[in-house]
Amino acid sequence: MTQIACPIEEALARKYPEPVVLVTTRDHDGRANVMAAAWVCFASSEPWMFLLGIDAGARTYEVIVRTRQFVVAFPHEGMGRETLYAGTNHGHATDKFKETGLAMQDASVVRAPLVRDAVANFECELVEIYQPGDCPLIAGKVVAAHANRDADLRRLCLVGPDYRLGGLRPA
Amino acid sequence: MTQIACPIEEALARKYPEPVVLVTTRDHDGRANVMAAAWVCFASSEPWMFLLGIDAGARTYEVIVRTRQFVVAFPHEGMGRETLYAGTNHGHATDKFKETGLAMQDASVVRAPLVRDAVANFECELVEIYQPGDCPLIAGKVVAAHANRDADLRRLCLVGPDYRLGGLRPA
Repeated sequence: MTQIACPIEEALARKYPEPVVLVTTRDHDGRANVMAAAWVCFASSEPWMFLLGIDAGARTYEVIVRTRQFVVAFPHEGMGRETLYAGTNHGHATDKFKETGLAMQDASVVRAPLVRDAVANFECELVEIYQPGDCPLIAGKVVAAHANRDADLRRLCLVGPDYRLGGLRPA
Repeated sequence: MTQIACPIEEALARKYPEPVVLVTTRDHDGRANVMAAAWVCFASSEPWMFLLGIDAGARTYEVIVRTRQFVVAFPHEGMGRETLYAGTNHGHATDKFKETGLAMQDASVVRAPLVRDAVANFECELVEIYQPGDCPLIAGKVVAAHANRDADLRRLCLVGPDYRLGGLRPA
């Protein structure tokens, strides 16, 4: 027996590496926010859609419901500190762009900002919210895309439990 | 301007590394099948659920609808050849377990087999199928989990376009 039965969380601890994304929003009052998310995948290729698991208590969730817009950005492997901050602090209480020093760039279609130094950014419009379990899953259609002019930047991943972040290179 | 507007596919080509999973099924006639999938994320933590994008034309899709059971396995970084085969050949025409030589191990709850040498395996029962765009997204509840007794195995990822697969190490 090579596979040993174990609690689900123990097997899930073998899930790394796990890429992370940043999700930005801008509320009707102009305030921008950014969070980190790891529950993310593609949901459609025609049109391109992302699916994002966002906790219903998060400011990002609230603003996406209100504005129906957001941006998905791929942080690069040098953005670990900022991504960790964005993923472990609440947008209700904190101006996370200010605290992290993450720079913004205007998007072309949506009001939510691009993350200027990310590997790539995807402007999204909310399609609908699906909830099969305890987390709302936000389906967003990509309406515009942007890539960093530095083609050598690589995506940041979680490489282990307790939010261990790192760049990754092929073995 | 650091971010340059571009076609969506061009920005998506910056998505790597991207972890892949193997999905196994067993039809009512006893026949096992395995495919590779990269559109996968968590959908719930209480209970734990996976969400998997599976093309409606795939044998895996058909058998999941019929049996309401499947297994999600994390291939290790030495399973590139098998994963590539499983991801680029159709289960309608091919016995992919036989062709790849992937070994099976009996699961504890579902009839679909575990991938014996994978990093971890998750037995799943179909919850429902959600389709916001062109791809069915299968929500499955994890009903049992297994991990490889070799704790040093790491997950296989796609590291670039054209199905380039590789192990990854922290930079």
